[in-house]
Amino acid sequence: MTSKLLAEFLGTFLLVLGGCGSAVLAAGVADVGIGWLGVSFAFGLTVLTMAYTVGHISGGHFNPAVSLGLMIAGRFEAKELIPYWVAQVVGAIAAAAVLYVIVSGAPDFSGVGGFASNGYGSASPGGYSMTAGLVTEIVLTAFFLFIILGATSAGAPPGFAPIAIGLGLTLIHLISIPVTNTSVNPARSTGVALFADGPALAQLWLFWVAPLIGGAIGGIVWKLVSPDD
Amino acid sequence: MTSKLLAEFLGTFLLVLGGCGSAVLAAGVADVGIGWLGVSFAFGLTVLTMAYTVGHISGGHFNPAVSLGLMIAGRFEAKELIPYWVAQVVGAIAAAAVLYVIVSGAPDFSGVGGFASNGYGSASPGGYSMTAGLVTEIVLTAFFLFIILGATSAGAPPGFAPIAIGLGLTLIHLISIPVTNTSVNPARSTGVALFADGPALAQLWLFWVAPLIGGAIGGIVWKLVSPDD
Amino acid sequence: MTSKLLAEFLGTFLLVLGGCGSAVLAAGVADVGIGWLGVSFAFGLTVLTMAYTVGHISGGHFNPAVSLGLMIAGRFEAKELIPYWVAQVVGAIAAAAVLYVIVSGAPDFSGVGGFASNGYGSASPGGYSMTAGLVTEIVLTAFFLFIILGATSAGAPPGFAPIAIGLGLTLIHLISIPVTNTSVNPARSTGVALFADGPALAQLWLFWVAPLIGGAIGGIVWKLVSPDD
Amino acid sequence: MTSKLLAEFLGTFLLVLGGCGSAVLAAGVADVGIGWLGVSFAFGLTVLTMAYTVGHISGGHFNPAVSLGLMIAGRFEAKELIPYWVAQVVGAIAAAAVLYVIVSGAPDFSGVGGFASNGYGSASPGGYSMTAGLVTEIVLTAFFLFIILGATSAGAPPGFAPIAIGLGLTLIHLISIPVTNTSVNPARSTGVALFADGPALAQLWLFWVAPLIGGAIGGIVWKLVSPDD
Repeated sequence: MTSKLLAEFLGTFLLVLGGCGSAVLAAGVADVGIGWLGVSFAFGLTVLTMAYTVGHISGGHFNPAVSLGLMIAGRFEAKELIPYWVAQVVGAIAAAAVLYVIVSGAPDFSGVGGFASNGYGSASPGGYSMTAGLVTEIVLTAFFLFIILGATSAGAPPGFAPIAIGLGLTLIHLISIPVTNTSVNPARSTGVALFADGPALAQLWLFWVAPLIGGAIGGIVWKLVSPDD
Repeated sequence: MTSKLLAEFLGTFLLVLGGCGSAVLAAGVADVGIGWLGVSFAFGLTVLTMAYTVGHISGGHFNPAVSLGLMIAGRFEAKELIPYWVAQVVGAIAAAAVLYVIVSGAPDFSGVGGFASNGYGSASPGGYSMTAGLVTEIVLTAFFLFIILGATSAGAPPGFAPIAIGLGLTLIHLISIPVTNTSVNPARSTGVALFADGPALAQLWLFWVAPLIGGAIGGIVWKLVSPDD
Repeated sequence: MTSKLLAEFLGTFLLVLGGCGSAVLAAGVADVGIGWLGVSFAFGLTVLTMAYTVGHISGGHFNPAVSLGLMIAGRFEAKELIPYWVAQVVGAIAAAAVLYVIVSGAPDFSGVGGFASNGYGSASPGGYSMTAGLVTEIVLTAFFLFIILGATSAGAPPGFAPIAIGLGLTLIHLISIPVTNTSVNPARSTGVALFADGPALAQLWLFWVAPLIGGAIGGIVWKLVSPDD
Repeated sequence: MTSKLLAEFLGTFLLVLGGCGSAVLAAGVADVGIGWLGVSFAFGLTVLTMAYTVGHISGGHFNPAVSLGLMIAGRFEAKELIPYWVAQVVGAIAAAAVLYVIVSGAPDFSGVGGFASNGYGSASPGGYSMTAGLVTEIVLTAFFLFIILGATSAGAPPGFAPIAIGLGLTLIHLISIPVTNTSVNPARSTGVALFADGPALAQLWLFWVAPLIGGAIGGIVWKLVSPDD
């Protein structure tokens, strides 16, 4: 159990350091900045790499909504849910703290601003409404779980799941960064919300509720498509 | 059959939500927008991910031209063609409806505009002629089918086909977004045309005719290259 | 032999249509254009996809310098060299002709300009000298052959070679588009030079000489590193 | 031993030519330049390609910090450490020399400037402090080794490690180019520092110390997570 939880801690750590870190440090730089396309790849590559690295140890969830969806689909034991959630959230917070140390070394540092946190309404990158945010997070988390369950099912070719899942997370970011800055992962949202200026903590509820609902739906839909799996 | 059709419905749903959604929501945002490169990856990654997820269930077509080309090459039964087409078109329409809900949550919403629909002449992103559009859609759909048939043939290494096919769709978009906004998929064109402002519905015929012709050609050319396959 | 040559024709056709086509049509469009990064991916993805599609039929060369380097390393029969070269060059010319038809459908068409041709001196995208062009094309073609020979050798994991080779071509373009517009492939250079305005035909010699020298060097260096392979 | 060292020489050569070369030649060009996203892919693709090419010969380190971390984790013999380091550093210097020749062929050449060297403080792309640079290089090199050790461990799916490791290096660059221009590799830093204008040589100590500490930490953490591996 210790190895599993350490793996989940480290995987979620890299997800936040890589995804949120690239957004905070490199996305908006003039001329050579990586933009939302670079941030989308960064989030996806954290999962692709860490799923190959520790997927055979912990399953490679790095996300409370993933753990829930896998449990609902019968692929993960209920008694492990809370320990996994704790390891994921602690990993996300630790990564946000390290990112804070790096960001505070900028020459003109005067606060972290949004710190790649998630939001809706005035805190949405494009100003999208709470309803748009809820729909987006529920639907995309459901597809994320659907991809995870299908790509790791017995019928799928073995070994390729981390590519499908990681690049699936890249795809999700390509769609939804403008709407909510993309969560689909309550741990990721929590880690940076604790450090961010603005309404991130006050809006954090949505980024637990919507991904968990979406994760559950994804698990259920997969069982409809592939009942014997 | 139900599992297959549900898989085709969901795969085509994600193709439209991901490809057209990224185009509508994230492509043209100033400074950090994902541009046509990001849209090209989004379309390709919908197919890469869903082919790993449900490819072993339905074959992973998500596209009426693909179903036709596979039938012509002897890889898909004729009696399944129409049910597949219906599932694909319904999935594309459902995704366009969900995208409409998200887009209407923008603060300055006053209509969806082109809504990532396909077009030629004045409705082509670069103003390309109908002839240019026909040539582009026929040739590229033919290559798409050729890639699909080759990468899933007995001689190709097993398991890699979704990577080749998905990134092949990315390649197709890198070439042809300026010409027709890239269809090669009548379901994708139909889904967004129903919601789009402008001439999308009036021009929809081309994005059924050209991809279907191209898909058929791709199937025939493959049999010329590899007659025993 | 017919299947092999048809495969080489089609693979080189897609290489030119995809790589040069994306450069001509989509690279320089304001705001949403794909830039040299998109062109680099387009070239690489033509090889990745077609190597999965017909690699088991023809070997998937699509490039006279690749055929030469493989022959020198003992992996390809000398008697097939000239037929392969002919199929590759004819495929490249056919693709350039199709691209010409598409481009001429632009609303403001008044000539193809450089047409993604290769060049040095005043015809180099960044104005780089002939010496810089020679060094760049020789060194990068040598590495391209080295990657091809290593990734397809008995010691390498089976099935992954098209990923390594295709993304290796992407890498080569990321480095050298500014210097020569990147050839490493005499067929690709010949196809578009026949249609291009400017000095492309007069400079074509370099894009046969340098890639062929580089391809030969790559074959020899591989035998030094792995003599028994 | 000769084959191994030649492989390490060539792999590190391509890493510097590809990664630093794309940064110097193609990153900052107006409108169509590849930006930091393109440079991040270039660095990652050098490792992805060369690991498939010579990974079965030398292990595919191309980086003194990787050799050290693998030794600490018990995967690499101590007696080979210094020969590997020498081959890697010589390869990096040779690549920097070839890049110098190419760059000096630019029409307006008047010196190489920073030459993609690494730095902190005034030599950091974003002006980040020495502390930010140390933290960034140590943490990211530790994760790089953790990915390498996990993705090549007995429990991971065979054949995919070069994808995970190469794209892991892409991820690392997406985060940290603004902070230190990203080293995580003392050989890469040394090669270009010898040619660069400015404080690169005076700051080179950090890009040996921090990556080697990080590499050692990565090796130790992996053994904590997977003691029997």
